[in-house]
Amino acid sequence: MSLTLYELGGRDGFRYCPFCWRTLMAMKHKGLDEFERVPVYYRDKSPIAFSNQGLTPVLVDGDRWVNDSWAIADYLEEVFPDRPSLFGGDMGRAQASFVSAWILQLHRPGLTEILLWDAFEHLDPQDRDWWRKDRQLHFGRLEDYREGREERVREWCAKLEPLRVTLSGQPFVSGEAPAYADYIVFGDFQRARCISRIKLIEADDPIYAWRERMLDLFGGFARTAPHEAA
Amino acid sequence: MSLTLYELGGRDGFRYCPFCWRTLMAMKHKGLDEFERVPVYYRDKSPIAFSNQGLTPVLVDGDRWVNDSWAIADYLEEVFPDRPSLFGGDMGRAQASFVSAWILQLHRPGLTEILLWDAFEHLDPQDRDWWRKDRQLHFGRLEDYREGREERVREWCAKLEPLRVTLSGQPFVSGEAPAYADYIVFGDFQRARCISRIKLIEADDPIYAWRERMLDLFGGFARTAPHEAA
Repeated sequence: MSLTLYELGGRDGFRYCPFCWRTLMAMKHKGLDEFERVPVYYRDKSPIAFSNQGLTPVLVDGDRWVNDSWAIADYLEEVFPDRPSLFGGDMGRAQASFVSAWILQLHRPGLTEILLWDAFEHLDPQDRDWWRKDRQLHFGRLEDYREGREERVREWCAKLEPLRVTLSGQPFVSGEAPAYADYIVFGDFQRARCISRIKLIEADDPIYAWRERMLDLFGGFARTAPHEAA
Repeated sequence: MSLTLYELGGRDGFRYCPFCWRTLMAMKHKGLDEFERVPVYYRDKSPIAFSNQGLTPVLVDGDRWVNDSWAIADYLEEVFPDRPSLFGGDMGRAQASFVSAWILQLHRPGLTEILLWDAFEHLDPQDRDWWRKDRQLHFGRLEDYREGREERVREWCAKLEPLRVTLSGQPFVSGEAPAYADYIVFGDFQRARCISRIKLIEADDPIYAWRERMLDLFGGFARTAPHEAA
């Protein structure tokens, strides 16, 4: 078995694609420790040209490949059925897709704008010109997102209420132990942690304690990734 | 086996408690067709005094009783393990609790205000004075909720986006077949359908088709309940 994960790369080893983090956590969940991680940059998607598309993550397993984090989760579940389940069955998988739709709704407006400047600053320098031009088409001047994020954070944090209520009653979204629904949500928090020092969650929020538990998983795998957060 | 479900009662046979609808659908899901339905009114909770609390639903099974729709779902799952599962396992149950937290967040502000006047009009007449006094403490004059609901509906409908996205990719929240996560969400739609003629969802919305599928379940059980919707 030879596994390679193509991830979105940033400067200085920063990895902040939330979908790649979903996949990384899913691979760890399946007990996979030996795999190569290859960064892919905005300016040159040729390393994943074989997948006939330009988005990360892409997983290569020997002579097979899968792109899209959701398809990769399905693939891992199919290929490693005897290892801890990511979904706990078809019903869990279906409901995890609801969790994914929910957290995606909070990207825009939401976390995307909050992290826009931080994201720019953590790009590989050679990606910056393209990215700035592309993002400014949608968001206007990037510098406008540099300050005054408090109100956006407050609004985003309020929208997390269903997560907060859930985690008041159980340690993980998936119940007593973490699984893919947790990795879906964690991807966004880990993205923020890697590139930003902004405080998203107060220490007395049940979400805070959950995030700590997530960071502790797999020997602190996510915690030890290059990050800006204190 | 002798089952009795104590439900919140309205005038003229209307039943519009969303939590009771969760339970009713869960009982049908478990293939239960023979049970007594006893209405309980705001003015007199003595029929459920044995449960040491005043909220519906309460399920009585022989000499046992369970209150709270979530606890009842757990009870049904435990007592009828060989019938179709409501949760599909522990992970599905945990994620269903997220779905419940999500839809509850859309009650206030949201569906509660949209349906406030309709709810008042469908009370048993003898409940009205108490209910008006109680609700006006929180909401102000009930009559103020009678008109101009369009903006509230628009906002509520926009917040349903994660449900919409999910149901664009699969027929039910729980996947290929309905289960408790669907009943959780359906309870709110059925509440609206029973007491209101207001149009909540456009016919081309994936949520609309899902609601139709839900109404068709169990021989049109929910569809044939007394209702105001066209």
